[in-house]
Amino acid sequence: MPKDNEDIIISTGPIPGSKKTYVNAGKDGTLRVPFREVALEESANEPPVRLYDTSGPYTDGDASIDVYKGIARTRGAWIRARGDVEEYEGREIRPEDNHSTEDAVDTCPVFPITNRPLRAKDGVAVTQMAYARRGVITPEMEFIAARENLGRSEQRDGEPFGANIPEVMTAEFVRKEVAEGRAIIPSNINHPESEPMAIGRNFLVKINANIGNSAVSSSVSEEVEKMVWSTRWGADTVMDLSTGNDIHTTREWIIRNSASPIGTVPIYQALEKTGGVAEDLTWELFRDTLIEQAEQGVDYFTIHAGVLLRYVPMTAKRVTGIVSRGGSIMAKWCLAHHKESFLYTHFEEMCELMKTYDVAFSLGDGLRPGCQADANDEAQFAELETLGELTKIAWKHDVQVMIEGPGHVPMHKIKENMDLQLETCHEAPFYTLGPLVTDTAPGYDHITSAIGAAMIGWFGTAMLCYVTPKEHLGLPNRKDVKDGVITYKIAAHAADLAKGHPAARLWDDAVSRARFDFRWRDQFKLAMDPETAEDFHDQTLPAEGAKVAHFCSMCGPKFCSMKITQEIRDFADKGMLDMSDKFRETGAEIYQPADEIEAAKVDAAD
Amino acid sequence: MPKDNEDIIISTGPIPGSKKTYVNAGKDGTLRVPFREVALEESANEPPVRLYDTSGPYTDGDASIDVYKGIARTRGAWIRARGDVEEYEGREIRPEDNHSTEDAVDTCPVFPITNRPLRAKDGVAVTQMAYARRGVITPEMEFIAARENLGRSEQRDGEPFGANIPEVMTAEFVRKEVAEGRAIIPSNINHPESEPMAIGRNFLVKINANIGNSAVSSSVSEEVEKMVWSTRWGADTVMDLSTGNDIHTTREWIIRNSASPIGTVPIYQALEKTGGVAEDLTWELFRDTLIEQAEQGVDYFTIHAGVLLRYVPMTAKRVTGIVSRGGSIMAKWCLAHHKESFLYTHFEEMCELMKTYDVAFSLGDGLRPGCQADANDEAQFAELETLGELTKIAWKHDVQVMIEGPGHVPMHKIKENMDLQLETCHEAPFYTLGPLVTDTAPGYDHITSAIGAAMIGWFGTAMLCYVTPKEHLGLPNRKDVKDGVITYKIAAHAADLAKGHPAARLWDDAVSRARFDFRWRDQFKLAMDPETAEDFHDQTLPAEGAKVAHFCSMCGPKFCSMKITQEIRDFADKGMLDMSDKFRETGAEIYQPADEIEAAKVDAAD
Repeated sequence: MPKDNEDIIISTGPIPGSKKTYVNAGKDGTLRVPFREVALEESANEPPVRLYDTSGPYTDGDASIDVYKGIARTRGAWIRARGDVEEYEGREIRPEDNHSTEDAVDTCPVFPITNRPLRAKDGVAVTQMAYARRGVITPEMEFIAARENLGRSEQRDGEPFGANIPEVMTAEFVRKEVAEGRAIIPSNINHPESEPMAIGRNFLVKINANIGNSAVSSSVSEEVEKMVWSTRWGADTVMDLSTGNDIHTTREWIIRNSASPIGTVPIYQALEKTGGVAEDLTWELFRDTLIEQAEQGVDYFTIHAGVLLRYVPMTAKRVTGIVSRGGSIMAKWCLAHHKESFLYTHFEEMCELMKTYDVAFSLGDGLRPGCQADANDEAQFAELETLGELTKIAWKHDVQVMIEGPGHVPMHKIKENMDLQLETCHEAPFYTLGPLVTDTAPGYDHITSAIGAAMIGWFGTAMLCYVTPKEHLGLPNRKDVKDGVITYKIAAHAADLAKGHPAARLWDDAVSRARFDFRWRDQFKLAMDPETAEDFHDQTLPAEGAKVAHFCSMCGPKFCSMKITQEIRDFADKGMLDMSDKFRETGAEIYQPADEIEAAKVDAAD
Repeated sequence: MPKDNEDIIISTGPIPGSKKTYVNAGKDGTLRVPFREVALEESANEPPVRLYDTSGPYTDGDASIDVYKGIARTRGAWIRARGDVEEYEGREIRPEDNHSTEDAVDTCPVFPITNRPLRAKDGVAVTQMAYARRGVITPEMEFIAARENLGRSEQRDGEPFGANIPEVMTAEFVRKEVAEGRAIIPSNINHPESEPMAIGRNFLVKINANIGNSAVSSSVSEEVEKMVWSTRWGADTVMDLSTGNDIHTTREWIIRNSASPIGTVPIYQALEKTGGVAEDLTWELFRDTLIEQAEQGVDYFTIHAGVLLRYVPMTAKRVTGIVSRGGSIMAKWCLAHHKESFLYTHFEEMCELMKTYDVAFSLGDGLRPGCQADANDEAQFAELETLGELTKIAWKHDVQVMIEGPGHVPMHKIKENMDLQLETCHEAPFYTLGPLVTDTAPGYDHITSAIGAAMIGWFGTAMLCYVTPKEHLGLPNRKDVKDGVITYKIAAHAADLAKGHPAARLWDDAVSRARFDFRWRDQFKLAMDPETAEDFHDQTLPAEGAKVAHFCSMCGPKFCSMKITQEIRDFADKGMLDMSDKFRETGAEIYQPADEIEAAKVDAAD
């Protein structure tokens, strides 16, 4: 396949120290819901820790992976069983689907298996929202309930800002959230390889990773592995932002091998077909591109339909104008034609189309701010109003919707974004890029943005689009993608914790107990990134013995606070707590049975 | 000097693209206040950007650096001019000051120059607080006013949560903040090499970097360079947390070469002198250690005086007990002796001692939580109460005080920490470690903690203690220290921005304008870390030409939103904004003078 003549090297095998497990779920118990399971050392005396798993079959030691065949099309049977779809010939692939210029050579082999596309019979809505509204609980919803539940606990403690996370996740809860538009299940009927997942404020906070070739760099084989690589570390969805050659074929390889929903920005491919001339874009060309991508199985489309002609001048005095590529393309089109964009004027037709494949809208924020100075300005919030209106229209057609958000926002302006979005867009899920909370640290924008992402995730954002260290500077390599994904898993998990998600703190507590007990291997295994955790430990104390040492590499064996605490705890076990109560009752007098002091000294000497 | 037989390699020379400049300040204009100045490309048509500079003489291309001599003792004249200090013989250095065991060999050469220590005459208070309360504006205060002022602007916009940052910083404002305990100026009279800086809620948020050898690893020469290295990238103060051999001598090399205040945790050295047996600690031994360090010039002492006997049992049921090394040492001492710790019972004597050198208290949070589960618990807040009481006692003696804070806190519990600290500790500056907002990502704790640090900095914390990627796993190397410092500069600056610091956004705006104008070199130069920014850019587009290219390495030349925005802006300049107003007045009708459309097409074609 690869045009760079290298074999595709796909990252397979379990995350170190973890095992892929499946839980049977659903009404008839036939759904196999994946988890990353971490078995702890015997001394822990704890059950294995079960973590949410986005990695698809690639981390299953027993799975046989063949990218030339694609992964299992598990959802295919569920989709057909609903009896509302039909196979059809589909749109013919044309040279311009892959080429930006006529003289470019087609170097990328096509995916070896051709699947005839499905579409809704008679143009009915085959969306999860349509089923949900009719009261139907789909296998997708059952799958998600089992997947999200994890181990719920009573340790709930948080500030949910109005979120309503249930004690126990049920398929009925999932259905209700989807029916009311508060959550989406991106699940194109032509992407039966996807493992169902939900994006919504009352579910675990999700993250998206962007991949894509570009005119400057990158190859097809890299893109497929980037998808595998980013979902391996925790990306819940992947957006293919490719431009240039081989867009169609690359996307086919990605979707056929992806267990995660795939999103795109169709205007990028449409623009390629015009040779890069924004003014030459037409509704017909765009619609054709939507069909092309819907037939391939793209699960959500970023559509910048809120960039209205009258909003464009609002950006002229900004420090960084329009920074969204899609937004600037549409702004240019609007100005050139002096008309509202075809994305806006043909919005209902788009809904008609998307409901026949169950492609979800990700309504793009084409006028998002590109720097701190432009945050929360007139242009941004004007567009948000329009996105709210479009949400209602999409829902009228049973099309699922999420709303994209900024970008670059100082901390004190983040909550306003969330509050306005919830109000203006009727609680449709918010999907933000960061936001970066300062613009002064290019090279570290995974961090500047993770600060904002964690906060806005806490406030209610349903999915966080990752940012890599290369943002604003260059294209991310393998390490950058991993750094971006892990950083965003941190932000998302911190948000879950602060929202009081009933399962979130179980993971932290498991790590903390391992830390306190000096179960080093358990700490590594439980880490978001076990490889880096163990590597960092070994840089200071490489010996195998150090991994079972009852001290840590910061302080060395003599100076260990954890060890001293254990002594205090042993002391307490010997009755000190009672003594302490007595101590407090009597005011502040010293209590001191001599034998306990001796006991403490013995402890201290070991 | 180095015991590892390598030459000391000290990082000198300007930050790439920046120049060290000095501004004359003070009543008589003799104070030389340092800044990092970034001259922009001519096309920017902007004055140079002036940034706060913590790097000391090391980034001054004209400075001659000789670590064997130490750096200039500029404050010496100011201190003597006050007429309230005397030189004296000082405490004799004893073998146990450097050795933990009798048979360890003294391998570290002593610093070649001996300075006789200063102390207050007749035990008066020579603290900045004492002067401030008497209405005296010291050169230190004048220096700080000039240093903090930067370019104030009218672009103020933020949520200060009760902070009171003045439009223009004056020496009188500095004096008042110090007099009222809301800020400290760590400035031991025996550390005349230090460049005055303030830690307080109404000043720029500061960061601290920890360095220190340990029983496990590290050498003396590494420690000196770590100080230079961490201040080069932005550490405002440095804590020397060394344990093991050569503590005294290493510290001397560090202080004599440090333009930043140096903090220590004296109990670490005191414990070394007992051979590591906490129960053998005594007030006399501890007091002697304080004098030893005060005579060397340590600017602030972390003192865990709030660990009371009756609080210790409160930690027994915690998931991670006591994680502060100092806290656990004192807890063990209290339990073993069944007495309140000597730090608490001799607190007033400590104040007497510290006021004669102007050493500030950093009242340690020995009972801080070590994991999410233990955050904001009874033990933590009980200790905070005591720290508040001790603050009042220290202030009675004119001793400067800041308060240390956690640690590990989920996002929704961060603000309570800040609010309680302000109330309980009478607005004494808060100095927190992170806090980490999740415990699930060892190897990435600079990030897990930067999220919490940015938030608590916004809420009012005056100084953020950095965390490196190696936290909980191992000892930081050079790269880790830099990663930690830059990450914390991001958190501190994001906090300044959100608080509405009048100078903060100038920096972001300068970067953003450079980004919009495709002034790549200016973006690199203005970055917190110019080396990484340029390196990341060059990984995608290494050619020199790409640094002046009017497109970026993410999208390539064809697909550039910034370029399109420029076209929109040009279009607006041609009168489009007026048209837009008219457009809105008339409702929503399309306006379209044909010549403007043509103009847009011409723009688009270039």
